Formats: sequence, structure tokens, C-alpha cells
Amino acid sequence: MEKISVGILGATGMVGQNYIKLLKDHPWFDVKYLAASPKSAGKKYFEAVTGRWVMDEEIPEGVRDTVVHDARDITRAKNECAFVFSSVEMDKQAIREIEDEYAAADIPVVSNNSAHRGTADVPVLIPEINPDHVDMIPIQQKNHGWKKGFVVVKPNCSLQSYMAPIDALRKAGFSVSRAIVTTLQAVSGAGYPGCASIDLIDNVIPFINGEEEKSEKEPLKIFGKIENRKFVDDDSIRISAHCNRVPVIDGHSACVSLEFADKRPSLSEIKAIWSQYRCEPQRLELPFAPHHPIVYRDEADRPQPRKDRNVEKGMAVTVGRLRECNVFDCRFVGLSHNTVRGAAGGGILNAELLKAKGYI
Amino acid sequence: MEKISVGILGATGMVGQNYIKLLKDHPWFDVKYLAASPKSAGKKYFEAVTGRWVMDEEIPEGVRDTVVHDARDITRAKNECAFVFSSVEMDKQAIREIEDEYAAADIPVVSNNSAHRGTADVPVLIPEINPDHVDMIPIQQKNHGWKKGFVVVKPNCSLQSYMAPIDALRKAGFSVSRAIVTTLQAVSGAGYPGCASIDLIDNVIPFINGEEEKSEKEPLKIFGKIENRKFVDDDSIRISAHCNRVPVIDGHSACVSLEFADKRPSLSEIKAIWSQYRCEPQRLELPFAPHHPIVYRDEADRPQPRKDRNVEKGMAVTVGRLRECNVFDCRFVGLSHNTVRGAAGGGILNAELLKAKGYI
Amino acid sequence: MEKISVGILGATGMVGQNYIKLLKDHPWFDVKYLAASPKSAGKKYFEAVTGRWVMDEEIPEGVRDTVVHDARDITRAKNECAFVFSSVEMDKQAIREIEDEYAAADIPVVSNNSAHRGTADVPVLIPEINPDHVDMIPIQQKNHGWKKGFVVVKPNCSLQSYMAPIDALRKAGFSVSRAIVTTLQAVSGAGYPGCASIDLIDNVIPFINGEEEKSEKEPLKIFGKIENRKFVDDDSIRISAHCNRVPVIDGHSACVSLEFADKRPSLSEIKAIWSQYRCEPQRLELPFAPHHPIVYRDEADRPQPRKDRNVEKGMAVTVGRLRECNVFDCRFVGLSHNTVRGAAGGGILNAELLKAKGYI
Amino acid sequence: MEKISVGILGATGMVGQNYIKLLKDHPWFDVKYLAASPKSAGKKYFEAVTGRWVMDEEIPEGVRDTVVHDARDITRAKNECAFVFSSVEMDKQAIREIEDEYAAADIPVVSNNSAHRGTADVPVLIPEINPDHVDMIPIQQKNHGWKKGFVVVKPNCSLQSYMAPIDALRKAGFSVSRAIVTTLQAVSGAGYPGCASIDLIDNVIPFINGEEEKSEKEPLKIFGKIENRKFVDDDSIRISAHCNRVPVIDGHSACVSLEFADKRPSLSEIKAIWSQYRCEPQRLELPFAPHHPIVYRDEADRPQPRKDRNVEKGMAVTVGRLRECNVFDCRFVGLSHNTVRGAAGGGILNAELLKAKGYI
Repeated sequence: MEKISVGILGATGMVGQNYIKLLKDHPWFDVKYLAASPKSAGKKYFEAVTGRWVMDEEIPEGVRDTVVHDARDITRAKNECAFVFSSVEMDKQAIREIEDEYAAADIPVVSNNSAHRGTADVPVLIPEINPDHVDMIPIQQKNHGWKKGFVVVKPNCSLQSYMAPIDALRKAGFSVSRAIVTTLQAVSGAGYPGCASIDLIDNVIPFINGEEEKSEKEPLKIFGKIENRKFVDDDSIRISAHCNRVPVIDGHSACVSLEFADKRPSLSEIKAIWSQYRCEPQRLELPFAPHHPIVYRDEADRPQPRKDRNVEKGMAVTVGRLRECNVFDCRFVGLSHNTVRGAAGGGILNAELLKAKGYI
Repeated sequence: MEKISVGILGATGMVGQNYIKLLKDHPWFDVKYLAASPKSAGKKYFEAVTGRWVMDEEIPEGVRDTVVHDARDITRAKNECAFVFSSVEMDKQAIREIEDEYAAADIPVVSNNSAHRGTADVPVLIPEINPDHVDMIPIQQKNHGWKKGFVVVKPNCSLQSYMAPIDALRKAGFSVSRAIVTTLQAVSGAGYPGCASIDLIDNVIPFINGEEEKSEKEPLKIFGKIENRKFVDDDSIRISAHCNRVPVIDGHSACVSLEFADKRPSLSEIKAIWSQYRCEPQRLELPFAPHHPIVYRDEADRPQPRKDRNVEKGMAVTVGRLRECNVFDCRFVGLSHNTVRGAAGGGILNAELLKAKGYI
Repeated sequence: MEKISVGILGATGMVGQNYIKLLKDHPWFDVKYLAASPKSAGKKYFEAVTGRWVMDEEIPEGVRDTVVHDARDITRAKNECAFVFSSVEMDKQAIREIEDEYAAADIPVVSNNSAHRGTADVPVLIPEINPDHVDMIPIQQKNHGWKKGFVVVKPNCSLQSYMAPIDALRKAGFSVSRAIVTTLQAVSGAGYPGCASIDLIDNVIPFINGEEEKSEKEPLKIFGKIENRKFVDDDSIRISAHCNRVPVIDGHSACVSLEFADKRPSLSEIKAIWSQYRCEPQRLELPFAPHHPIVYRDEADRPQPRKDRNVEKGMAVTVGRLRECNVFDCRFVGLSHNTVRGAAGGGILNAELLKAKGYI
Repeated sequence: MEKISVGILGATGMVGQNYIKLLKDHPWFDVKYLAASPKSAGKKYFEAVTGRWVMDEEIPEGVRDTVVHDARDITRAKNECAFVFSSVEMDKQAIREIEDEYAAADIPVVSNNSAHRGTADVPVLIPEINPDHVDMIPIQQKNHGWKKGFVVVKPNCSLQSYMAPIDALRKAGFSVSRAIVTTLQAVSGAGYPGCASIDLIDNVIPFINGEEEKSEKEPLKIFGKIENRKFVDDDSIRISAHCNRVPVIDGHSACVSLEFADKRPSLSEIKAIWSQYRCEPQRLELPFAPHHPIVYRDEADRPQPRKDRNVEKGMAVTVGRLRECNVFDCRFVGLSHNTVRGAAGGGILNAELLKAKGYI
């Protein structure tokens, strides 16, 4: 099979760097086109990221000397790639506009940005949870008069640590009515340079701008359904999130207490449900799909960011400490790799789903 | 006024070191007697702590050359001090026994240990919250046939960050029915050497042995009352605690969601209640009483351990981020200094209350 | 005595914040005038530093509501203060120009900036080491035609950890010919936000831009003398510096190997020389002068940043691990508080010396 | 080829864990025998390491259920493995005895311990540097009357970051006469639990017990030669080492200043020498031999532990910042992975060399 040519918008930022690292040997996708802000345009990639390449590996050879283009030069993009991953760093209005322009130019946009998450006809995809939300794509295209282009987004990184565990329970017939969540989030989630070192030595920061709202609202759309050609939020669950920044490189932890709507599963039922959780990406055998989307650890002190974030190449959620909750029904700790599952890896899995479904 | 001679059991451990540091210029108490395990007995204090004095200040001059005695040599203790602070490191059964022996020998014991917290006639004191629990002391003495001796304890450090804020609301007439709490706890709470460095670089640990149980149960006794010469737990509140260890030296944070039983105060009422919170230690002007037991910060990203732990010399609780909760009624972040308010400082305030009440 | 009115240029930056914190209760100086960039001008101080006040204490009451002025409004400065501390953040050329303008306007400038350290007639002062360099001030004034104004600077923070120990040996008659130094420097030295957290978790950075050059060159001027109305560098010593950034808040460590020119003292002589080191600031009893400019620790594992940086209120150098060097004559570890002795505290001591000598 | 059965003494400790992780898919060696202290004996491996398995990966399947034996049960070892890796944690005398007993029982011992490094007829091997030191093995066997058994050791982890760079220069004909080295060492070098977290948050420790002596002495034996059936230390080089512990998981950095004996290479010659450095392990194509034993980085701020420790699977030394030294001739920063190249990986490379040379 010939590989599909892929572009990356915002290729020089941290999420862009992760795309380049993770797509290095991808069986379907080939990074052919790099775009960023005008000040990077015209430079070779390695020049454009000098002093801010933060990956632990080197720039892949095939990308090192690729010339970076201006993200606004859509005509050029159209000639060089079949679709784009978007992780541009602009204000929300500008992001929506540029993503729409790509879509209008017949270039599908698989976005990491939050800008379009609230847009009525843009799916917020987690392939294990709501793969059917791709059915909004033809509607979106019709709404805009686009032919091949469209925009799909992935949700915020903070909620990956608890969405799959909750979804597994819902799909097993146990409706979760309320969840109180406290996250301990890694610094890589703040981009580069992100958090100041002086703020996170001998310290934690109990606040991440905008993060709690996203952690509470986006799940409702993801769990929602399409009715009358529109997304309708799920109204059976309410989530409260406290978001903290801790001095960890990668890996967002979440301490979660759950209340069930009516019948509640036993703890051993929950563990069984989680360990048997298999979804559309697993059935389709998508290259980035984790074999086990949820990995349960029995040890008393797991999951831990450094020890568990790389499970299933960073694409699984690791869960542990499932126990009775003294207030709600049960509680647990979830962990996911925020720059893999929560960012570039999640975007790639979205693109793989779209490819498998014939949208790209 | 002549100062009262004080002994410290477990003087060489981390809590013992904190007692020595904090009592340095105390207006009422004078550290005269140091006791520890047999292997420290006979050594000068500075020798006994060589290689494990972890305070940021030097050993106070007056204590440096004091000879450490065997904690089991109660006869000697009786001659040298009027009461003791107890922070011995033994198994629980052994601690209960030795603390009882001191009490039986007419030496009041102001303890930091958890061993006696569940004992039916031992008060778990937070002077702002339940100063009336000292009324159990005569009952305890009668139960055991002790004359002057008795045992009082302080609660676990983890709960100091949310107990005063909840107590203030209760005293203002707003009954809290349920609380879900996630703590981010400092390493000094684990003693010395405590947590391995290799476990807390680029990592957090979502588990502290026994901590969640203490964080959930002790509040019920503290909020409880004395009926028929016995403590009766408060049964109007239920607490669920997730306890995490984070790479912070001092300062336990708590992310708290609260549900009220019936009527609920507005956010501005809550802030007013907290800022006006004054209690028995403030009325008695105890030396270690913070002028403001609860300090509210308006900044979006406070409280933070390094910036707020030392407020009011480490004896206040700093609270911030009060906002509506998406699931319960309100939520906030609390912070307290775990080795001051949560350990030695809390023990000293207990002793001051006991002195003011005539028990020592 | 009436206090002298003092201005701070660059009052909103990290060094400026330190000046404000350290001058809070100064017996001679009173902060009356705050200046910063045009974007802070007109705001109250607390507004101007919102979100970037990084001190562990609150803004002192007397300064909180003081209005910040544009650093270029020299006329106003002249009416409100007798001299200024300068810690503006501009490019070097701009700093030299603005500092000269203040001097020309009869306002002495006690500077923290590196811009003027290489200027031929500007003294680089460490009051213990070269208090006689103030004799360059009248020459400088004559060179420029200034009447009361002048510029003096303090050296880079990195060299404070080894300069006093070397100076003590020189003054005792032991000429140090060569020194190889490796520093482990705190993040506060990089200003705010300074180092990215993602770069210093599970990592050290073996490079600080420009720091090694300063660490090697500035000592030669400080140890030099005035000949024919000019500074002549000391040419008897050569220093090689490796500078590293480590995840420490405050406190620069230096591992130092020394070679003596001819005769060499024994290790016990060196310890005696260090412990007896007293200089002009001590003789003049300047308020910020440490009683012991060099504090020696006998423990095998000291000095350590967190435990030793605050000795003598952060104004002393702590030294330890003196031992034979396998290549040169001896070696040791030095530590100084980079934002106190190495920045604002050092500037204040310079101003105190200048006041005592009648220059301000 | 049938794989060689291998035993690990001290299999439950941190170095033992690294052996198990690194040998997982080794083409020549198969871990068949695990031994540790009597308290682990009889347990399955996963039970024996419960709560102290610190690797980021899981225990390999083939080892998980292997029963651990008492390291003193040499008869059993003899039946189950052809040679052993030794990383027992005992006092030095006991280590020497047990390693000798294995050798006497015809079991070659490839040791990580320091106990035998000073023993006259025991080679301290770095395969790139002194592969000819294996010629001491027959002499050692004759000295003891051993037939097939012998003991070889690897040097301390601290010196790996500068030994190869110096050796490359020596082999190119440039004799290094003096080196002053400051190391910044990772916590994994201290074993588990090793350093207390409370000592390395906002802190560095300027002392590691015994480390400086090893860093200075072991190189002389490694660079030495065999004369009259004895090792004669190299006396052309002298090294001075300052060793510091920093809050880094893995990766020892070294800041190095070098003086050449007579002729000195230019900086570009040095870079060329380093990049062309190929040695016996590369010629023999040993499985764990790095293709490039020395990797030079041109960036101003490299090498860094987190970014460079895993180069060549942790078996290379990364070098950067080569520049003129203001005191000696040149200086640079070296970095090596202390638990791979500096511990288990180094031991494995030693065993591979011994296999290739016919000793095992």
C-alpha cells in the first residue's frame, strides 16, 4: 500500500514535535508537509526547532531537512498532502478560521486544538468511545458546502485518564451519574517553555487555566449522540474537576470518585469490565490502537506516571486502587500519557479511524 | 513566670526535631528532657542526631549538649519535666503502653502518635475545633485511676487542610453532609529517610499507607461530642479521601468538594465565615495560636505549598479557589504546614490549651 | 537618623522584588521610588507584579500601593530619592546609557547589572574584598563631569561562592595562582520565568549563557588595583569555570580546586584563616554585613543549598569539604545565596559601604 | 548457537534488576539462575522483589516465576549456569570471599562490586580501553589454583563519563597528565531506596561516600599494564574528582578540565579523535558494544542526562561543550548512563568480551 502524505500544522511546537516523533515509522502515514508560523517559514525543520526540540530522541532523518512552510499557504499544502494534523498555536478565532480554510480547500483537518471542540457540527473523537461520531462529517460538509475537507478534533488531555474507565462501565450497562475528579498533571501539557522551573520545585500549582471547564464539559459531548443531524450532550452524568500541575514530565493522573445512577457493579465486576474493554479501534486493528485500552494494576501504589505512562506505547489508560468510596460508590486512580494518548497519539488514532472509515 | 519543664519522647526523630526547633524561644515551655530509643540513650543530643538532623536551622544551643535518655526510664523523666510531648517511633501497641505508663506516673502526655487516636477516652484535639474535648481528661483519669497524668493526641497531618474550613462552616450553622477530598502531601510527612528520591523524581505516588482511613475517620471523633462520659462520633458528615505523595518538602494541599446538608451559604458568605473564624485559642491568646486560623487568598493559583505554608508561622490553613462545584455545592483548595500545624506546632498548641485550662 | 530615600529601577523584576523584600526594615534606607518599563508605569506596585511576584513573603505594606514610574523619567526620580538600586532588564547598551543618565543627574547608581562591569572607571565591588575600589568614584565623576552621581556595580552571582574564600587566603599571604571551579547554580539566578520546568525535571543543564566568562574575568578586576587612575587587573590568578544549572530554588554551589603560587597553607591553617576572616564591612558594622563572612562546616556532606543558603541571613559564604586535591593543592565546596549575597543583598551592602564612606 | 546459561548473584537489588531487564533478549546469554540473600531464597522472583522492583518495565516473563536461591548455595549454581554476574550487597570482605568461592568452583564471576577492584590479579575491565587486561585471567587462575573460574570486575559508574574520552586521546598519541573532574551523579547510583527524597528536593548533596577515591584511583589501574604477571598502575596521569548527587534518575554528568603532558591536539583534532574512536568491542561486534562509543554533540547546552543518557541504548558516552580551558588545555562535559554503561550494561559487555576471547 502506498502511504498517505500527511501535513502537520504547527510542526515546530511541542505537539507538532510529538507528531513527528510518533509518525516516524507509521505504516499508513508519511509526513510530507510541515507548516508553522511565518517566522519559521522557509527554514529547514532542524533550523526552525533549534533550541526548542524537546523530544528525548533526535529529529527523524526524513524530516530533519524538510523545509517548513507558512501555515497560511494552503495552496501549497493542497499539493503536498492528503490531510493535515493541526496543532497550531494561535488564538481560538484564528485557529477556527485557518482550520475551516483547510477544510474548504478539500484538506481534512485532524485537530488537537480546543478551538473547534464546542463547534456544533465538529466531532470530538475518542475512537474507543464514540467512533460513530464520524457520522457527523457528511453533515458538517453539507453545512459548509465542503466536498472532501472536514474538521474533527480530539478532546483535552486531562480527561483521557478517566473517560475510558467510565465509558467501559457505561457500555457494560452501569450508568455513572456523578464523578468528582482531581487531576495531577504533567508539565509537558503546558507546551514549551510552559511552567517556570521556579514555580514547580518544592511546589505544586493548584490551577491550570481553562482546564477544569474542559474536563467537565467535553465529556458530555463525547458521550452524547447525534440527533436530527446535531450533537446532543449526554445529560446523565455530571463531572467536577480539580486540576493541579505537578513536577512530572509526562503522565496525567486522576483521582476519581464515581456514583452510579441506579444499579452498581461490584469491584470485581468493574475490574472484569475494564480488563475486557475492547472497542472499534481494537476490532479494526488500527496501528496505534492499544491491545488493552485499559490496563489494571493490582499493586497498592500504582499507577505512577513514570512507571505506567508508557504502557501500550503510551496509548492505554492505566488504572489502579479501585476501592469503595466513602461518599460515592467507588473510586480509583487513572493515568494516561498526556503527550501520546492525550495529544499526538490520540490525533493519529483519530486519523487511523477516519482512514478505516473511508473519510481520508 | 517560671517556665514549665518539658520532655520530648522520640526527640531524635523528625517530629522530635521539629519540637526542638519550634520550642526554642517558647514563652511558657522549656525543653529540659530528651528521650529516645536505647541506642541514643547516653549520647549528647547533637551526637544522637548526627547525619539525620534535617531541620534547615542549627540545633538550638540549649539542647545541643543535652544528654538523651532512654524513653523507658520514666522515673528519670518524672524528676525532670512536668509533661512530655510524645513522638516515639514504635509499633502501636508499644506506643499505647509507654504513653499509658507516663500517664500513670503522673506525667501528662501530649502525643503526636496515631496509636491512641482510636482509644475511647483519649481526646483527639484541634484547639480551634474541639477545645471542650479536654473535658474527657478527668474521665480518662478516673477510668485508669491516674491522678495528674493523662493522654491527649493530635490528629493526622493530612486532615488539617480541610478541618478548619469545614468547622468554620459548621459553627456558622451550615452543616456539611459530604466531602470528597484529594490530598497532595509533602515528603516530610513520611519522616526520615521516608520516601526514596528515585520514587519522586518525575513522579507522584498515589498511595500513603493508612492515610486515607485516618483522613476519613478522625474527623468524626473530632467533630463528635461527649455523651455519658464517652465520645460519640459525629454522624452528620461523611468524608472520602484520596491521598497522594508529591515532591514537596513541606505543606499538604487538599482539593475539596463539599455538599451541604440543607441550606447552603453563598460563596461570599463562605469567604466571610472563613475570614471571621476565631476560636478558643485566639480568645485565650495562646502563644502558638494563629491570629487568623484561616487565611483566604484571592489569586487564581493559590494556595501553593512553598508560598503559603509559612503563613502565621505555619499555624494557619490557607484556602483559595473557592468556587461552585459541578457536582456538590462548592469546592476549594486548602493548605497547611504538615510539620508545624500538622505535627509539632499542633502538639504545642494542644499543650498551650491544656495549660490554659489548668491541666498541666 | 532620618532614613535615606531610595529608588529601585527595574522594581518589578526578580532582583527588584528581592530589593523590596530585603529593604523592608532597613535601618538606613527607605524605599520611596519605584521605576520599571513603560508598561508598568502608572500602576500601583501590587498591580504591576500581579502574576509574577515570586517572593515567599507578601509585598511589604509600605510598597504595595506605591505607584511605579517609567525608569526613563529621571527628573521625577531626582525629586524622590537620594540614590537608586538598578536592576533594569534591557540590552547592555541601553542599561549603560540609562545608568549614565541617572549619574549625570546627580543620582548615584548602585547597580546589579553586568552592563558596566567592564567599563574602565566603574568599580565592581565586593565590600569584604575591595572596599578601596570606591576610590575610583571621584575619578569616574571627573572623567564624566558628574558632580554627585556615579555608577558602581556588583559582580555576577556565580563567583560569590569562591571569591571570599580565595580572598581570605590572599590576604593571609597565600597567593592563589590557579583555580578550577564547577558551579551548580539555582534557577532563581535565571530570573522569572527563567528555566522551563520541563528542562529541569530529571535533568541538569551544563550551560548558562555568558556565565563562565563572567566567572573567570570579573575576579581579575575585583582583585585588581587602581594605578594611574585606572583599574589594573590582577594577573597572578587564573580561573576556569564550568557552570551548570540544577533544580534548586536558591543557592549556588561551587566545587573548587586551588593551586598556590609558592608557599601553601596547611588545611588547618586554611580553616583558621577562613574562620578569622573579618573585613571592612565587619569593622564598619554595616547593617547587612555578615558577622562571619565565611562559615566553615565540618560535616562531610555540607554545604547544601537548602540547609546553608540562609546562614547569616543569606550574606555569608558557607564552605565545607576542605581537603587535599589530587591535582592542585587543596579543594573545597563553597555556597552562597544567589539572590541575597549574589544579588539584592550584595547591592545593599555596596550601598551601605558607600554611605559609610560618604559617597551617598 | 545454543545460549549460555547465566546466573545473577544479588538478583533482587537494583543492579540485579537491571541485569534482568537488559538480558531479556540477549543473543548469547540466557538468565537461568537467580541468587540473593537467604531471606529471598525459595521465593519466586516476582515475590522476592515485591515493593522494590524499580524498573520502568515489567519483570520479563521468563524470569517472573523463577525461584531465587541462596547466593551461598554454590553447588546448585554450578549445575545451573556457566558463569555469574555478581552484584551482591554485602560488606567487602564477604563479597571477596563469596566471589572467590564461585571462582574456585569453576564458575567465572563477572562482578559489579568494588570489593575486588583493588585485588592485585583482578582486572578492572572497560572493553574499549583495556581488553588486553583479560590476559591476567590465566595468571589469576594459576595464583589460586583455579581451573575454569576467575573474577573480573567493572569500574565505578562515576568514571565512565570521562574515561573513554581520555582514552581516545591517549590512543591517538596525546598523553593527558592531569584532569580535574566534577561529577553530577544520578540517584539510581545509590541503589534502592538510596537517597531520601527530602534531601534532594530544592537541594544537591556535595558528597558521595567513597566515590571520589574510586574516581581517582581506578583509572590508574585501567590505564595500567601487565608487567611481570602483575598490574602496574599508569603513573602518567593524575585525576582529582569532586562528586555530587543531583536530583536526576539516571545519567552521570562530568565537567572535565584536561592538561596534556606535552603536545596538545587542537579542539577540532579532539572532536575528530572522539568521533573516530573504535575499539575491540566494535571490531568484535559484541552485541552490547555501541557503534560509536563516544558521541559528540555540537549544541551549546548538551549533553543533558534526560536527553542523552539513552544514546546507543545507554552504552555510549555523550560528550559536548569542548572548549579551551582557562587553566588547563581543554575542557568538556561527558555523560554516561550509570545503570546501563556504568553498571549492568558494562558487566554484560565485559562478559561478551570474555566470551569472544574464549574465557567463558
